Amino acid sequence: MKAEIIAIGSELLTPFRQDTNSLYLTDQLERIGIPVTRKTLVGDDTADLKDAFRDALSRAELVIGIGGLGPTEDDRTREAVAELLERKLTRNEEVVAMMEQRFRARGRKMPEVNLRQAMVPEGADWLPNTEGTAPGLWLSTDQGRTVVLLPGPPKELRPMFEEHCLPRLRAHAPKHAFATKVLKVVGLPESEVEQRIRHLYRDVSNPQTTLLAAPGQIEIHLRGTGVDTGEAMRRADELAERIEDALGDAIFSRGPETLEQVVGLYLMMRGSTLAVAESCTGGLLAERITSVPGSSKYFLGAVVCYADNLKTRLVGVPDKLIKKRGAVSAEVAEAMAKGVRKQARSALALSITGIAGPEGGSPDKPVGTVFIALADSARVKSEKHRFLGDRERIRWQATQAALDLVRRRLAK
Amino acid sequence: MKAEIIAIGSELLTPFRQDTNSLYLTDQLERIGIPVTRKTLVGDDTADLKDAFRDALSRAELVIGIGGLGPTEDDRTREAVAELLERKLTRNEEVVAMMEQRFRARGRKMPEVNLRQAMVPEGADWLPNTEGTAPGLWLSTDQGRTVVLLPGPPKELRPMFEEHCLPRLRAHAPKHAFATKVLKVVGLPESEVEQRIRHLYRDVSNPQTTLLAAPGQIEIHLRGTGVDTGEAMRRADELAERIEDALGDAIFSRGPETLEQVVGLYLMMRGSTLAVAESCTGGLLAERITSVPGSSKYFLGAVVCYADNLKTRLVGVPDKLIKKRGAVSAEVAEAMAKGVRKQARSALALSITGIAGPEGGSPDKPVGTVFIALADSARVKSEKHRFLGDRERIRWQATQAALDLVRRRLAK
Repeated sequence: MKAEIIAIGSELLTPFRQDTNSLYLTDQLERIGIPVTRKTLVGDDTADLKDAFRDALSRAELVIGIGGLGPTEDDRTREAVAELLERKLTRNEEVVAMMEQRFRARGRKMPEVNLRQAMVPEGADWLPNTEGTAPGLWLSTDQGRTVVLLPGPPKELRPMFEEHCLPRLRAHAPKHAFATKVLKVVGLPESEVEQRIRHLYRDVSNPQTTLLAAPGQIEIHLRGTGVDTGEAMRRADELAERIEDALGDAIFSRGPETLEQVVGLYLMMRGSTLAVAESCTGGLLAERITSVPGSSKYFLGAVVCYADNLKTRLVGVPDKLIKKRGAVSAEVAEAMAKGVRKQARSALALSITGIAGPEGGSPDKPVGTVFIALADSARVKSEKHRFLGDRERIRWQATQAALDLVRRRLAK
Repeated sequence: MKAEIIAIGSELLTPFRQDTNSLYLTDQLERIGIPVTRKTLVGDDTADLKDAFRDALSRAELVIGIGGLGPTEDDRTREAVAELLERKLTRNEEVVAMMEQRFRARGRKMPEVNLRQAMVPEGADWLPNTEGTAPGLWLSTDQGRTVVLLPGPPKELRPMFEEHCLPRLRAHAPKHAFATKVLKVVGLPESEVEQRIRHLYRDVSNPQTTLLAAPGQIEIHLRGTGVDTGEAMRRADELAERIEDALGDAIFSRGPETLEQVVGLYLMMRGSTLAVAESCTGGLLAERITSVPGSSKYFLGAVVCYADNLKTRLVGVPDKLIKKRGAVSAEVAEAMAKGVRKQARSALALSITGIAGPEGGSPDKPVGTVFIALADSARVKSEKHRFLGDRERIRWQATQAALDLVRRRLAK
């Protein structure tokens, strides 16, 4: 069984609105083993709608339409699908009663225009909407295919799908189940990750392996199939173990955790504390660390010493050292880490100094040159990096490398 | 002329990846009067791809495919379109030379596998890629329709589209022109913005008015139509002026500038400098300010005093004051602003202290309570806010309010 999703609404064809419902539905359908093979975004136009549903029904057993069930003239999904399938629309008095009840509960009279939402195609089941007025619709075509129409607002769509669609779809769903395992990698370029593990997954069809690359991070998605979730997970786990062996501690997460969450968990486990001094990243490192709820338990604070004299004034980097080595140097990075550690009285301290661009590069230290240092009570260690990309990308990668440095230290 | 967009990649049919290129392309096409009438998201499967392009070409004069032009076996767009249009693929030596040059510049040899990217369908034009290896492709079908294939990474797609596609498309574009004017509002809730300006735009069809609300910010998009861009812009400007009168200095931008860019422009114009002390926003305020290239000209640095004793140690907030008033108080916000201004020797200083949640709230100071202060040489002024939403939203709104505070001061 394959599914297609049709997201409906002229606003989805403007530069301003993104369809997000389909990500949710894809996730829900994948869990019960129904792959989504196509998504179509179409405006509120009857001919376009009929066309989109006709095409989708020629390819997929399940077609889910989202949106266009509102009470106004703009909303045409109900009518278009009824026309396409040659089903008469009739007013359903149960739906009318339910809608009137909803308005009454709010002390309002139902506007006449809402009666359109009570029109149900011949042979269709209507699906109650606990969060709004538009009921959903469930139709079987003469060819035995299924059309489900859901309202556009996520808070109406989600409970309706989970309560009234999932149970029915499970009956149609294949006997096999799926499970996804995600491994997240930091500190290696995509080409190297691929080279190290390609031979492990290349000829394996279960689980399916997908590599997703983002700046400074690679995700490996392993999607196992089995007669039940347990078997599906075992298949994913088997390959995951071999990949973990091949990539070692470059893997920082085996689940949904971000790098800043993993660092936070380690700091909490070790009862350790962290402070930060950053220059070219301008607060991004601190922002990422403090985006984690509860980070005040291990994160003490940061100094963003953007101007050179603040490196001296706030974290005691000797003025002479900056003049001698340059603000972007291993020595200054180390002095920043030591300095902020002393100021904050933290167990560990990280620092970043570099050139994020677009200006400020030189042949000697081109844009993307970044020094990172980590200090503890015994010593300070620094690393030199050269990141590619624009200002935003360089800043992101620099924080990724800094978080990874402290992660590796804490993992020992 | 109508356009359809086909976004290609099996990852777009997972719950993890959203297509964002099509928003950009829709915007670009709308500006030259070409509406996007459908978007299709399809996996890297030759049969599905042929099917999607065939269907789209039966409806639209312009079909833009995004993605699937990479060097690996997974990437099948080039082959699928060539097969569909019955065009032979041949290796283009100009493209090979360009790609080899790109690798050479990085001191690497081009892998054999990349040669696939040099395959160009008969009769097609290839479009140079200044940011990556995959060239784009421009084909005219035997029926006189246009297929454009662009690479998936936004930083490759955008310059290619603007340099090599827009000029050619403009020749096909309709005689009437469009112009969009954007007004950005800070510090007012959506309901109040709507109430103040609704009577101005409600019955006006040219320009079309759209309100887009984001946390702490509202955008008003005015899209004018005319025989030429000049007339279209005049229509948008006429209404924009009336809206500007109604909203006054709540409008911080009349174009693409973000709030942090506007603040940066003011600081630069006034030859002023800024420093920041932040607590609950954990570096986000500094990060936003320094995300603007060239911000080192006016931004000196920040102190993220997450732990209370860092408020004392780094910016000299009296320990007693924190004990007496609490770390989240007008008095501490003011002391933080004064303290960081003194440390950084800046003309202006902003501070934020508050409760971002989910923990840490009290009946007296619930989650979302935030104090913001602004200090200059003569005085310090603070404001109390109560923001709604989750941690991320509260942090964002707090930085929005802080940036707005300094904007209003500098605008005087």
